[in-house]
Amino acid sequence: MTPDAANPIKDPHDARPHVLIIGGGFGGLAVARELKAAPVRVTILDRTNHHLFQPLLYQVAMAGLSPADIAAPIRAVVRRQKNTSVYLAEVTGIDIDRKIVEVAPSGLRYTEIPYDHLVLAVGAETHWFGNESWADHALGLKTIDDALEVRRRVFTAFESAERERDTDRRRELMTFVVVGGGPTGVELAGALSEISRFVLARDFREIEPKLTRIILIEGLDRILGSFDGSLSEHARRKLEKLGVEVRTEARVTSIDARGVELGDERIEARTVLWAAGVRASPLTELLDVPKDRGGRLKVVEDLSFPGHPEVFAVGDMVYAEDARGRPLPGVAPVAMQQGKHVGRILAGGARQPFRYRDKGNMATIGRSAAIAEMGSLKLTGFPAWLAWLFVHLIFLIGFRNRAAVLLDWIWNYFTYGRGARLITQSPAERMRRGKSKPSDGESK
Amino acid sequence: MTPDAANPIKDPHDARPHVLIIGGGFGGLAVARELKAAPVRVTILDRTNHHLFQPLLYQVAMAGLSPADIAAPIRAVVRRQKNTSVYLAEVTGIDIDRKIVEVAPSGLRYTEIPYDHLVLAVGAETHWFGNESWADHALGLKTIDDALEVRRRVFTAFESAERERDTDRRRELMTFVVVGGGPTGVELAGALSEISRFVLARDFREIEPKLTRIILIEGLDRILGSFDGSLSEHARRKLEKLGVEVRTEARVTSIDARGVELGDERIEARTVLWAAGVRASPLTELLDVPKDRGGRLKVVEDLSFPGHPEVFAVGDMVYAEDARGRPLPGVAPVAMQQGKHVGRILAGGARQPFRYRDKGNMATIGRSAAIAEMGSLKLTGFPAWLAWLFVHLIFLIGFRNRAAVLLDWIWNYFTYGRGARLITQSPAERMRRGKSKPSDGESK
Repeated sequence: MTPDAANPIKDPHDARPHVLIIGGGFGGLAVARELKAAPVRVTILDRTNHHLFQPLLYQVAMAGLSPADIAAPIRAVVRRQKNTSVYLAEVTGIDIDRKIVEVAPSGLRYTEIPYDHLVLAVGAETHWFGNESWADHALGLKTIDDALEVRRRVFTAFESAERERDTDRRRELMTFVVVGGGPTGVELAGALSEISRFVLARDFREIEPKLTRIILIEGLDRILGSFDGSLSEHARRKLEKLGVEVRTEARVTSIDARGVELGDERIEARTVLWAAGVRASPLTELLDVPKDRGGRLKVVEDLSFPGHPEVFAVGDMVYAEDARGRPLPGVAPVAMQQGKHVGRILAGGARQPFRYRDKGNMATIGRSAAIAEMGSLKLTGFPAWLAWLFVHLIFLIGFRNRAAVLLDWIWNYFTYGRGARLITQSPAERMRRGKSKPSDGESK
Repeated sequence: MTPDAANPIKDPHDARPHVLIIGGGFGGLAVARELKAAPVRVTILDRTNHHLFQPLLYQVAMAGLSPADIAAPIRAVVRRQKNTSVYLAEVTGIDIDRKIVEVAPSGLRYTEIPYDHLVLAVGAETHWFGNESWADHALGLKTIDDALEVRRRVFTAFESAERERDTDRRRELMTFVVVGGGPTGVELAGALSEISRFVLARDFREIEPKLTRIILIEGLDRILGSFDGSLSEHARRKLEKLGVEVRTEARVTSIDARGVELGDERIEARTVLWAAGVRASPLTELLDVPKDRGGRLKVVEDLSFPGHPEVFAVGDMVYAEDARGRPLPGVAPVAMQQGKHVGRILAGGARQPFRYRDKGNMATIGRSAAIAEMGSLKLTGFPAWLAWLFVHLIFLIGFRNRAAVLLDWIWNYFTYGRGARLITQSPAERMRRGKSKPSDGESK
């Protein structure tokens, strides 16, 4: 590969410092927004063209929302911010000493992008904890494509069960294992139960979707460990009422195409959803900085790199602690506050240590069921659910500027409908039917 | 392969005649609806789980709507029709003499489904007129996956142009060729122009999306040949006002990765959309029945097969003529009327010849621009566009039962926004990043 001489990002006539932000998620956008009026040039690099509202990704997986409902083109988000450009490209190298980021947009030539200040905000990916082969059978949930694949697999399982006469095979098809009892696992398990009981129950003739078995597996002694114990307990009872089997202190020892193993016990299940953890993006491997077990960067107090005050990292790829020394969770509010903090420094503010202001924590279990914790205030049930809905809608409408999501939700709530229940083709099928050369060896 | 002994579709205790419908499109669903109260058992087989509102597929390709806005699970559509079952499966064989359809749901075992009456309603696919290799470069538009691929390619072209400094390469990236001047080609060309002029113009910094070049190529001497000449002319002027170059009596002689050739002339263009024609589904190849040039079945007057009064075909896969001997177009109203006709016969009605009642014909060019022809009434401009919107919404809401599409449209109309402007991964990328074995030979 040869570097690209014609680099549109480098403008020798522009004397303003160049702030390069890698990642257009909550953290990266918060940095850019804070720099709106600053005398700098801002470039946002991302490998997708959209900002994703990840807290609602499970709704896309469970067919309650469409991908476009929870994503907005990054260009559209920063449209009015005249000092900011957006480039769709994947980062292939970072040279902190030369202050250069290398991207390979076309694959043939690469571009070196010089920066004065660099902000890394690329987030996290599914963590398999050393069992990478499990990724062949279990499904993670970090991108829109992940969500559509989960949706495809879940709804295809019901379709296959409808055709299946063999009782054992049918039972396998209708058993869903969710690994990980954090907010995402709880949301998935709750939504799966509601779909099979209220939505699909009306549509199938041969199978009884109500007989769906959903097993939520958590390694610790309670689900939703970041919440107060009473709220964890409430969520567990609520899930069990929805028919979900909650297994705590259970550890998955093996996953294959037909099920999972928990030590000596085997659960036959064709669909396994993995919500057991995340680790920092592989981009961190390019960096010679101390990291924690999950690959998260150990930055200094103002979120800059040790010895490199011009380089910052924010969001899920960063290890940071609260005032009491507990690690901060990988959630949107942390990323947004960190982004704002870095933006202020880059806009000329003082280099203060980052402090997280915890405004609360919430998780939803299902229709009218959620838990919320704000300081000493604890909510459960319908009030918590309304609070959850309100907070998510406010944020989402801020990004998307439209009310279609609200309408979808109201509609789903009153009709128990799932408008987005489409099964689109699997990547393999798309390849087979599509433009690529057919692989003759492929089994049918 | 061995046949599946446990066939859920065969029920020896059910004495009602079994009507098997292959295809859940406009035609197939119209048959099923007509049989709602009839003393028959109905099975709808489809290889996807959704009914697709094809007339609006171009809106998904052009990011005006989400896939779920124009598709509904077939199960949900026939939910209340208790005599009807739905199976997701691909047909691998039809034995008209034994009255059996063979499907291979799992690929390992196949199922033989016996029928008393069979209705084929599988529609059409993109027709390359013998130039199958063009499918490697040009994009057809018949399925949701096609639409998402068109969307991905079009919006990625603008993203690549934004990064590109080389003037020639940038011009290639911003040149779009649409082959075929029928309603779909006109809709695509018009929407492309509007997107680049009104939507993307605000979002890009380096390129001027207004400089996009869109070329619509039609082999005949006018576009929209099924309409009155004055309406064709109106549409042409309107497209030209939108900046579309309309080339009539032009024939594509070659398509490659960098452009198209029209005889001696070459047009450099990275994106070529193919709306030049359709042919009957390959399923027709399984059938020993007279066909026309496009593979469409030549059935007898009541739409049954010659010598097989228990087998019918409806919709785009059928060649039929109007009272004046002109072939009927492949549009939803024809399929729906044919489906209704066959449904009535199967419900015990008389075997009358099918007669198409032409209620009109419309095509949209863009925002507030359309043409419509109903008998001697001809509409253009805003009234035609309102009529088009009204007719499509009525039909769509009938299937989808929700107002989100209306809201999206109103929003897009007033804001010039395109909410669904997401680029999701290409099949190849999904394979590479996804669960499949990585192919080491793949270039990056």
